[in-house]
Amino acid sequence: MNKNSSNMMALAPNTSNKRETVCIFGTGDFGRALGHKMIQSGYPVVYGSRSTQISNLIPKDAEVLGHAEAAQKAAIIIIAIQRQHYNFLTPLAEVLRGKVLVDISNNLKLNQYPESNAEHLAQLLPGSKVVKAFNTVSAWALQSGTLDASRQVFVCGDDVEAKQMVMNIVRALGLTPLDKGSLLAAQEIENYPLQLFPMWKFPIFLSLGLTAFFFLYCVVLDIIYTYIYENNDFSFFIAITIPNRVCPVMALILLALVYLPGIFAAIIQLYRGTKYRRFPDWLDKWMLCRKQLGLIALAFASLHVVFTLVTPLRAFASWRTGKGIISQVLNNKTEPLDHTNAWLSDSYLALGILGFFLFVLLGITSLPSVSNNVNWREFRFVQSKLGYLALIFCTAHTLVYGGKWFLSPSAYKWYLPNIYILSLIVPCAVLVVKFVLIFPCVDKPLTQIRQGWERNPKYSK
Amino acid sequence: MNKNSSNMMALAPNTSNKRETVCIFGTGDFGRALGHKMIQSGYPVVYGSRSTQISNLIPKDAEVLGHAEAAQKAAIIIIAIQRQHYNFLTPLAEVLRGKVLVDISNNLKLNQYPESNAEHLAQLLPGSKVVKAFNTVSAWALQSGTLDASRQVFVCGDDVEAKQMVMNIVRALGLTPLDKGSLLAAQEIENYPLQLFPMWKFPIFLSLGLTAFFFLYCVVLDIIYTYIYENNDFSFFIAITIPNRVCPVMALILLALVYLPGIFAAIIQLYRGTKYRRFPDWLDKWMLCRKQLGLIALAFASLHVVFTLVTPLRAFASWRTGKGIISQVLNNKTEPLDHTNAWLSDSYLALGILGFFLFVLLGITSLPSVSNNVNWREFRFVQSKLGYLALIFCTAHTLVYGGKWFLSPSAYKWYLPNIYILSLIVPCAVLVVKFVLIFPCVDKPLTQIRQGWERNPKYSK
Amino acid sequence: MNKNSSNMMALAPNTSNKRETVCIFGTGDFGRALGHKMIQSGYPVVYGSRSTQISNLIPKDAEVLGHAEAAQKAAIIIIAIQRQHYNFLTPLAEVLRGKVLVDISNNLKLNQYPESNAEHLAQLLPGSKVVKAFNTVSAWALQSGTLDASRQVFVCGDDVEAKQMVMNIVRALGLTPLDKGSLLAAQEIENYPLQLFPMWKFPIFLSLGLTAFFFLYCVVLDIIYTYIYENNDFSFFIAITIPNRVCPVMALILLALVYLPGIFAAIIQLYRGTKYRRFPDWLDKWMLCRKQLGLIALAFASLHVVFTLVTPLRAFASWRTGKGIISQVLNNKTEPLDHTNAWLSDSYLALGILGFFLFVLLGITSLPSVSNNVNWREFRFVQSKLGYLALIFCTAHTLVYGGKWFLSPSAYKWYLPNIYILSLIVPCAVLVVKFVLIFPCVDKPLTQIRQGWERNPKYSK
Repeated sequence: MNKNSSNMMALAPNTSNKRETVCIFGTGDFGRALGHKMIQSGYPVVYGSRSTQISNLIPKDAEVLGHAEAAQKAAIIIIAIQRQHYNFLTPLAEVLRGKVLVDISNNLKLNQYPESNAEHLAQLLPGSKVVKAFNTVSAWALQSGTLDASRQVFVCGDDVEAKQMVMNIVRALGLTPLDKGSLLAAQEIENYPLQLFPMWKFPIFLSLGLTAFFFLYCVVLDIIYTYIYENNDFSFFIAITIPNRVCPVMALILLALVYLPGIFAAIIQLYRGTKYRRFPDWLDKWMLCRKQLGLIALAFASLHVVFTLVTPLRAFASWRTGKGIISQVLNNKTEPLDHTNAWLSDSYLALGILGFFLFVLLGITSLPSVSNNVNWREFRFVQSKLGYLALIFCTAHTLVYGGKWFLSPSAYKWYLPNIYILSLIVPCAVLVVKFVLIFPCVDKPLTQIRQGWERNPKYSK
Repeated sequence: MNKNSSNMMALAPNTSNKRETVCIFGTGDFGRALGHKMIQSGYPVVYGSRSTQISNLIPKDAEVLGHAEAAQKAAIIIIAIQRQHYNFLTPLAEVLRGKVLVDISNNLKLNQYPESNAEHLAQLLPGSKVVKAFNTVSAWALQSGTLDASRQVFVCGDDVEAKQMVMNIVRALGLTPLDKGSLLAAQEIENYPLQLFPMWKFPIFLSLGLTAFFFLYCVVLDIIYTYIYENNDFSFFIAITIPNRVCPVMALILLALVYLPGIFAAIIQLYRGTKYRRFPDWLDKWMLCRKQLGLIALAFASLHVVFTLVTPLRAFASWRTGKGIISQVLNNKTEPLDHTNAWLSDSYLALGILGFFLFVLLGITSLPSVSNNVNWREFRFVQSKLGYLALIFCTAHTLVYGGKWFLSPSAYKWYLPNIYILSLIVPCAVLVVKFVLIFPCVDKPLTQIRQGWERNPKYSK
Repeated sequence: MNKNSSNMMALAPNTSNKRETVCIFGTGDFGRALGHKMIQSGYPVVYGSRSTQISNLIPKDAEVLGHAEAAQKAAIIIIAIQRQHYNFLTPLAEVLRGKVLVDISNNLKLNQYPESNAEHLAQLLPGSKVVKAFNTVSAWALQSGTLDASRQVFVCGDDVEAKQMVMNIVRALGLTPLDKGSLLAAQEIENYPLQLFPMWKFPIFLSLGLTAFFFLYCVVLDIIYTYIYENNDFSFFIAITIPNRVCPVMALILLALVYLPGIFAAIIQLYRGTKYRRFPDWLDKWMLCRKQLGLIALAFASLHVVFTLVTPLRAFASWRTGKGIISQVLNNKTEPLDHTNAWLSDSYLALGILGFFLFVLLGITSLPSVSNNVNWREFRFVQSKLGYLALIFCTAHTLVYGGKWFLSPSAYKWYLPNIYILSLIVPCAVLVVKFVLIFPCVDKPLTQIRQGWERNPKYSK
């Protein structure tokens, strides 16, 4: 092949560059939407259908034939029918032999069938090459063309060439294929669109549980105790006062729980003297949901901020302010400014503001589009350094706010500590251990271990 | 072809893998920036120019020749000149025959010419294969390499192979080609960079209109009425008090308008007994701008929050607080805490905070990078379930806040209802109808219809 | 080649479509993670290792051989070993001749070695084709498959075909290759993961410096001056009062500094009469960090908002309110509402709220995922039009807030102006010059220059 002919090829790309016909079995919503999109991208499309009457819903430029005829026209057949009807494909086994069958089906429930739809199809038609794809794309997204929802198309299959052909189509439609490996991955891919925030489940249940506990704890101490012993009805505290006690406590504890697994991991690595052994399962899972824990903590912190800021608007607050001033007037004296009090009040407000500010920064950098634009070192810097700084500020905020009550007996109604005392346990423990871990004599071996050094190399073999 | 030779090919990819020369007509900003980027990506570049004197602005590694000579060197010619000068290409028709011409031009105004620039070029040079591309990329983005702005390059053209060649170049430059179909799409692609938030136009005009109406309504009732009948000058209410009355009303109405079209759609589908007939045009358009309506509602809600939170900082508020306390003192009595009032005030604040919190969550999940990371079910869950919950909270917030004034005659100055009464009409209607729609006897047929069932199947044919 | 055979090819893609074997030298974390991912995507993987004993950490389906044997099996060899050990590759020079070597190494420090690792490798093995890639991807991201961090893989190399082969692998793994040109770019690519917010450095240092200056300035005027001349200890102002004076000043100045370089650029272009000459270096750099300046300004503005909103919660504020009311009571008079004051207070609050609202809008549109979804015209509209509007609102907010003190001698302690007077200099200058620039007699030539017109065309040659 001489230089010239290569140039010729560039001028007139060979015919294999021409897009090959694609066959679609089924003329439902998704089959029509996909066909429409394919025609737009230059693929000849032929539909396989029971009735070859051309419905006006089917794209104009598509051919409609019987299933067998349609299948013969193309190397790739998209099976846009429901799993229950797969059986009718068995008589077509001979026609479909060697063809690439694209299973795009979804189920209505998680793990509805023992094996995935794609594997079921592969068992029914062992002579065909089954590829799972497109199930995460909605007909609506294809039709509207906006594809605001995910552009990713998960693809899996046992035949590498068949998978390649499907992935080329995916790319041609302006979507991004993501190879998930062999057909065994089909189960996972089929479950994907049925999932409802799987990573959020544990953090949310944990938060709900803790919130309920602290809420009841506060109701008992602040409302029931006051009602019994002081005969005051403060039931309206349920709306704002108590939520505004629970939210900061939850925010602080959850933020500390974000950094706790890292502490455990460091201790385990130091103890084992190697990083080449897997962490216990619970720690792995915990580390994977740190982002979710942190975001829920941020939500609680935000609620705390707003609940606090509305304080002056509450009828209760106006009444209390008025009462205080009137009592001063009636006693005919003006209290001078209490400087210690002014310092304390301004300090904990300022610490809280700075802690919340850093917290929001952490939240913003965890947005996918922001974290995609920073490198690994920058991401670590923000999430680790700034994160610990936020934890320090928030813990200090709580300590300064409640410090004076630590030793006051009125904080221990029914011998139970106030919840802000409870809330300080985990963050203080995390900060103290972290403080120990950054001492050079501990930090140096840890860094070495993390760079691959092993105390007892035999362990890793 | 035996196994061995295939391996050979992998070792030494055939020459067609080498990047073919690209010719660029025109040495303006964009032509230079594109040439520079192409050279960087390994394409030999040759410029076609009137003067073949080499300017120091042209990339060093590029050749500069006359138009005809340059065109002969390449299969792809990028036409980086303005539409007005396309006529000078007609004498080159013979040289350009069979070549791929890439039209990258933009106009200064929407629909400036009857046909798109690319179609005009295709008419001038019927022997060439015209592809529209690159017009949405700016020279600055190409040059700086950051491409912070969109990485998407819309491509269209009648010749599939030509389009493929151009899309390969687009990919090689690190951009994402998006096939928009035949050259008919060129008009749309050329209009794209001239658009100014087309989806936002209707929601913004609607909001401005309603805001102006409610603002005037409030000015009349709160300032003019008070001035005439009570002889009080409250003109300074224009700055904060009235905006803070209009904002929540707008937020609530717009949020309800986000869910209203879904209600209409459900009723229409129930009535027709099929989902296979198109909605009326106005409903389609309305449904497409729900996201925009929701975000504007969120903006109003945020303004309402900030306007409310600054209340204690206003000179008017301090004066009113002082007046209240002083009148208590002068009457020599201390008012006890009004428990009903404390409950009401805390409840509507708490409801408002929770509603706003959910509202902000909805806003965050509508960020493209977040919505791309959730699946369809999760997106629906947040936008529909959490959205309705936000609407319920916000409506309850308004009801509790204003409930006591519903029957008070002072709320009907000049026989006109207060605007918060007006604001409740749409959200209450939406919630009531939605409540009916989730009854099993209504929900079941609706779900069936949405899964494809038809009451009178003949309709869809 | 007839039509039929082309169809045959579509049915049975030729063997070159089959994925070729990839060899990986080194069985460290990254080598294993990459191998695992490649096997998942259908590549046969063979490891080259000193000990060919199969460790259970190495992916199951991979072969492990000696270096020379492994290298012979593949056309592409990924060098997953550290730069210090590159020397051991020299004896393998003959085996590696003509092969594609992918350098994936990173250093521990910026510019640790005189030449990049990839160039060093190319010098050691001149017969091989070195391509730099994958160094920005972390083993963790590959393993977890989430790739939440950047999906972009920078690729560079002198051999276009070798680069193509590597980029195809990158794509097959679901990542996005970005061609950065010849191997000279390797230094930059290797430095990338070691950078820590390089674009933020100047804006952050500038902000820290200015903040420190203004903070001290306020401490001197508000605390030391008051202590000396009025004998009042207001040291607690350090926590909230002074930060809340510095933050708005910083926000306003930084926001003005975002628009100042644009003003300079316009003046320089008008003066030179052409846009085809480069701006001075300092201006170029300044323009490139406008986004960062703006975001830091937004951070200061947000802090100002929160610091302001907590005012009523401060012990100092309650004390001052009480004192004011009690003095009224003791004087036995109720002050009437001061309408001018009410107007002023409400106006600057409203202006501030609107300015902040627009500011937040600007911040949201600068999120990568949002700015990627708007076209150039829309982005310009928001960042320029809305940005100037925000600047106008914020400047007006400051003017109305502090206007009454401009002429009051108490604002000039020790003959020094209050900082809000200093803060107005830059924004007012920017607004005045911008106002001049939008006059038609100035705007018209400027627009022409920006469209390419030149006053003295000889300049550009």
